[in-house]
Amino acid sequence: MKSFITESFLLKNSFAEKLYHDYARALPIVDYHNHLPPDEIAADRKFENLSRIWLRGDHYKWRAMRAFGITETFITGDASDQEKFQKWAETVPYTLRNPLYHWTHLELQRYFNITELLRAETANRIYTYANEALSTPEFSTQKLLTKMNVEVVCTTDDPSDSLQSHKQLANSGFTTKVLPTFRPDKVYNFSSTDGYISYLNTLSLASGIEITSYDSLLLSLQNRIKHFHETGCRLADHGLEQINIPAQVYNPQTLFTKLLGHEVLSGSEQISFRYSILIELCKMYHKQGWVQQFHLGALRNTNTRMMHLLGADSGFDTIGDFSQASSLARFLNELDRTNQLCKTIIYNLNPSDNEVFASMIGNFNDGSIRGKIQYGSAWWFLDQKDGMEKQLNAISNMGLLSCFIGMLTDSRSFMSFPRHEYFRRILCNLIGQDVENGELPDDEKWLGKIVADICYYNAKAYFNF
Amino acid sequence: MKSFITESFLLKNSFAEKLYHDYARALPIVDYHNHLPPDEIAADRKFENLSRIWLRGDHYKWRAMRAFGITETFITGDASDQEKFQKWAETVPYTLRNPLYHWTHLELQRYFNITELLRAETANRIYTYANEALSTPEFSTQKLLTKMNVEVVCTTDDPSDSLQSHKQLANSGFTTKVLPTFRPDKVYNFSSTDGYISYLNTLSLASGIEITSYDSLLLSLQNRIKHFHETGCRLADHGLEQINIPAQVYNPQTLFTKLLGHEVLSGSEQISFRYSILIELCKMYHKQGWVQQFHLGALRNTNTRMMHLLGADSGFDTIGDFSQASSLARFLNELDRTNQLCKTIIYNLNPSDNEVFASMIGNFNDGSIRGKIQYGSAWWFLDQKDGMEKQLNAISNMGLLSCFIGMLTDSRSFMSFPRHEYFRRILCNLIGQDVENGELPDDEKWLGKIVADICYYNAKAYFNF
Amino acid sequence: MKSFITESFLLKNSFAEKLYHDYARALPIVDYHNHLPPDEIAADRKFENLSRIWLRGDHYKWRAMRAFGITETFITGDASDQEKFQKWAETVPYTLRNPLYHWTHLELQRYFNITELLRAETANRIYTYANEALSTPEFSTQKLLTKMNVEVVCTTDDPSDSLQSHKQLANSGFTTKVLPTFRPDKVYNFSSTDGYISYLNTLSLASGIEITSYDSLLLSLQNRIKHFHETGCRLADHGLEQINIPAQVYNPQTLFTKLLGHEVLSGSEQISFRYSILIELCKMYHKQGWVQQFHLGALRNTNTRMMHLLGADSGFDTIGDFSQASSLARFLNELDRTNQLCKTIIYNLNPSDNEVFASMIGNFNDGSIRGKIQYGSAWWFLDQKDGMEKQLNAISNMGLLSCFIGMLTDSRSFMSFPRHEYFRRILCNLIGQDVENGELPDDEKWLGKIVADICYYNAKAYFNF
Repeated sequence: MKSFITESFLLKNSFAEKLYHDYARALPIVDYHNHLPPDEIAADRKFENLSRIWLRGDHYKWRAMRAFGITETFITGDASDQEKFQKWAETVPYTLRNPLYHWTHLELQRYFNITELLRAETANRIYTYANEALSTPEFSTQKLLTKMNVEVVCTTDDPSDSLQSHKQLANSGFTTKVLPTFRPDKVYNFSSTDGYISYLNTLSLASGIEITSYDSLLLSLQNRIKHFHETGCRLADHGLEQINIPAQVYNPQTLFTKLLGHEVLSGSEQISFRYSILIELCKMYHKQGWVQQFHLGALRNTNTRMMHLLGADSGFDTIGDFSQASSLARFLNELDRTNQLCKTIIYNLNPSDNEVFASMIGNFNDGSIRGKIQYGSAWWFLDQKDGMEKQLNAISNMGLLSCFIGMLTDSRSFMSFPRHEYFRRILCNLIGQDVENGELPDDEKWLGKIVADICYYNAKAYFNF
Repeated sequence: MKSFITESFLLKNSFAEKLYHDYARALPIVDYHNHLPPDEIAADRKFENLSRIWLRGDHYKWRAMRAFGITETFITGDASDQEKFQKWAETVPYTLRNPLYHWTHLELQRYFNITELLRAETANRIYTYANEALSTPEFSTQKLLTKMNVEVVCTTDDPSDSLQSHKQLANSGFTTKVLPTFRPDKVYNFSSTDGYISYLNTLSLASGIEITSYDSLLLSLQNRIKHFHETGCRLADHGLEQINIPAQVYNPQTLFTKLLGHEVLSGSEQISFRYSILIELCKMYHKQGWVQQFHLGALRNTNTRMMHLLGADSGFDTIGDFSQASSLARFLNELDRTNQLCKTIIYNLNPSDNEVFASMIGNFNDGSIRGKIQYGSAWWFLDQKDGMEKQLNAISNMGLLSCFIGMLTDSRSFMSFPRHEYFRRILCNLIGQDVENGELPDDEKWLGKIVADICYYNAKAYFNF
Repeated sequence: MKSFITESFLLKNSFAEKLYHDYARALPIVDYHNHLPPDEIAADRKFENLSRIWLRGDHYKWRAMRAFGITETFITGDASDQEKFQKWAETVPYTLRNPLYHWTHLELQRYFNITELLRAETANRIYTYANEALSTPEFSTQKLLTKMNVEVVCTTDDPSDSLQSHKQLANSGFTTKVLPTFRPDKVYNFSSTDGYISYLNTLSLASGIEITSYDSLLLSLQNRIKHFHETGCRLADHGLEQINIPAQVYNPQTLFTKLLGHEVLSGSEQISFRYSILIELCKMYHKQGWVQQFHLGALRNTNTRMMHLLGADSGFDTIGDFSQASSLARFLNELDRTNQLCKTIIYNLNPSDNEVFASMIGNFNDGSIRGKIQYGSAWWFLDQKDGMEKQLNAISNMGLLSCFIGMLTDSRSFMSFPRHEYFRRILCNLIGQDVENGELPDDEKWLGKIVADICYYNAKAYFNF
């Protein structure tokens, strides 16, 4: 059976096809947020087989296999790579209507020219064929990025990271820019005081600044931000359930001293301290001219039994229903009041908050630059056709779609770049349908320009890497 | 005027029609959750007229009539059956775009072959015609179930119920299995301590275990579960606004002693006690190999004036906006931690929580069986085309639609079984549209198998009645 | 380039076109809630230029311009009217898919017969052409209302208002009824005690009742309600984030004495006092036979920096995510318990609450009049095609669309009346599509009647102005 993914995939009329093929398709990719391992790019790693590059670490696939009734042995356990692939192949036909079904076949086609549908019966043939390809030089990490026309990649990095791989890549002549992103989640993770103090030591070492007080913590972070900036970083990122505005504000110096003394902070102390650091960091980003990102709304590590077995990020996170509007407004306002709110992207995981987010950004656009505050692309569980369309419609209705900086993969996988194609097709289709329905003028050049802006030029102008 | 409900009703293309007519239509019905009265099935009751079988007890219709400006006399009051029917008929045309409009004409057609539209002018003719049919043996409760090809019916029963009707039916040769469901809502309803203690007496009597302590309460419940199991029960059900995790945990023995002494529990004590019982019950269900259901999100009895006049379940309940994600995760996790989480179905009443629910189930699928945790079919206010499509899309995007156990009526009415047809048509149409749009491969056999699984085989395998 | 807005704009099939052109188009407009300035109608004002009538005060446009990167000088600042218009024209093409794009071209076409698209290049020509028209007698405020076939306009007025303009208009022979609406927001705004006391003085003066106690406050309000009623008022309106039910109830007399003594009320005292006044007002409305409106869900004045520069209502309000269901139910129930709940319209700003609102109204419909409790038309950020369709679908699924009283502009602008056309087209299209899809019978007369009811006759009957 041949793939259903044709040239007109997701494009329901000829105007949409024209937009995609003539204005969007050939544009380079600026993947301004993902979780690719920079060391594997620097080493130009190759992959042993299709299981290693495709299944390992992909908790989307893992969740689907668990729902399908496959035991952990074949997912994260001791089974062989080929056995795991076989089980995945058996699952694939049952993922119909899930984004995995589209991603799977799009990725097989774009990377390997495999148009056959993956299922139990075709698993062996596809595995062998792909593995052969993976053994050639054309399938190293760098070649894969080049093949996908990736101009910029922004990885996600801890403040204590030496950024050795990024530096090595900058000097290597590799044409894709591989830039770090400053993600300081550990700086306000106090769930274990021992772990926290040990992290502070790492940070002291990295910055060369001994962290003995709140002030020296801030100095150390400022030092790392400078270091990141010199290595090409222009972005920070934060993973938070919601912005928590402290009901009671404590002196951060006092709280930090407590932490250093291995004291456990109370809930309200933690909120206060986390907020203090966050505000300070955001002011540093503003000074540096960075873009700050907030990934809001995930409820993480819901499954204790599996957390003990597999650790974090193994497929047991979920969509939360936190209150977002008021605290987010107050947080952005606190930075804006003193004109220290830098360019900001907020990402939302619960689609019932789409309109809250899409209207929120309008409150802090001050005309200083186009699209200063962005409502980020549909994220994680929402990274599929429905989710993207809802996010694009919410931006359109509450703000200016034309100023949107578009898609990013947010992925750990070297095979996920066709998601940009997926996004571009969906975008072109929405606009094409509006034209067909008489809701937009039939002006190909104008709409083609808007599409190209959203797919590439807006991000390029916004980040100015 | 002839009905608009044709063979292709809700099926927008020929692929969808093929799926419905060749793969879904003829399958038996497993109605694994409803509120049919088992005694009326056992007695093989017949109905005096169309008002009695169709209007009495149907608070969906009552709400519509009240919105239309019809006084209570003609709804639940003293007017004659025929007068009430006349008023309902006048209302029907004004219910356009409400599911009542579709249900009404689908039910008239499927049970009586009446294709004329119901309205003031046709009321008398339809009433007379249907009443004649109702007087024949073909319209007894058992015959109605047989006519609709119902293989299993799961009623909703109090723990103290003798299940006499179910036993009688099991021995009667009636081919539809009529099984009880364990619904212990009264076991944690402390709104009146007198009422609660009186309920405990009923429970003591039913179980033959005198309830003098928390332990004997649990023993009594265990006894009833065993009794239900022996009578064919494989399901429990709970109606809750949300899962309430106690902020403070009290000793349940102490609280129970208070209740027996006619003391009113404080709000936080009630939450704690309710949660203790709930956890114990869920562990019993797990031991028994049952499926547990949670109907979440309803805000009940909002209208005091009408509550005093008509009691509960008379059309004054509504959709709540409770916080669900975190507490639901913690509850499921508490059971999963010790591997005591049985097969579970969670139903959601507020569509803005669809994605929370659809992603939640993925956190506790452990690969032990296919689709272990289920996101239940669109419920109550959402039991209509939009609601079903949103629920089906949410499952599809966040999980595996292919493993979904499908539709149930949740109804009090013997005339509501065409809702399975309604669901099946909607399901086939969604998949048919995906094929037409090129988003699914044009593989009729495969997609027909998936449709048949969702309409019948998945439920059969999941419950194993 | 000619406008894309043709005769069949938003109408996707011929049934929809028939409904719109034959049943909806020619009906008068009952604009039962807006913010038009009554003095400008009474004075039959004309506008100096297109900027003045179209851009001044329009914070929708301002937000778009800020997002597009235009500095405040050209929005609310010192730039000339023509410069501001030029900047707006540059922004317009970038508002594609935002309602502004449709409104802009619909308004140019309906008021000025301008079919050219507005953009940088056409700005000058359009500005000159429109200004010429605006200088003619045909473009006075009264002529504009007559041109749009507006039968009734309900403005929004403070209780202390003399309603001089309304009285003048009533005696002027102007055929559009211009009626006041009682909006007592200032009566429970205690954010500044000085401001509050000063407001009470204004109210004392207007009513001729010296406000020295809670009782005299209520007397004064009752006096104003009577005055409003005599001037034709039949509606009250309230802007609230959510209905706040006091956790603790204080004696309103005591709280009012505190306020008069310049004491600042605590948070919970404010909630209690506000609720006391609200309940009293609602009982007065009921006695008077009015309709009460609640605009819920806005989070206002999020941006302190701009608040200081520009004041309220300048484009820095947003969609909140307040909890609504339980408190709204309790509030409506409190009034209904004593049968003092008057006709009520609730408006919702967060679309994820659509189903909560749409099902809520059903709890308090008591059959006394058709559609007694209304779920108001899509509001503010939701006043666009997606928002309207979602609201119409929610009403349809949870209640009776047929009893809906339809559209209102809620606008400050004399050029926003084509939004009624926008709404009517969308309504006709939804029903037309249902017919095409076989989900409604192909009964033009019947559906035409329903459409006409929603566009005009339902409101006329409901308000009985």
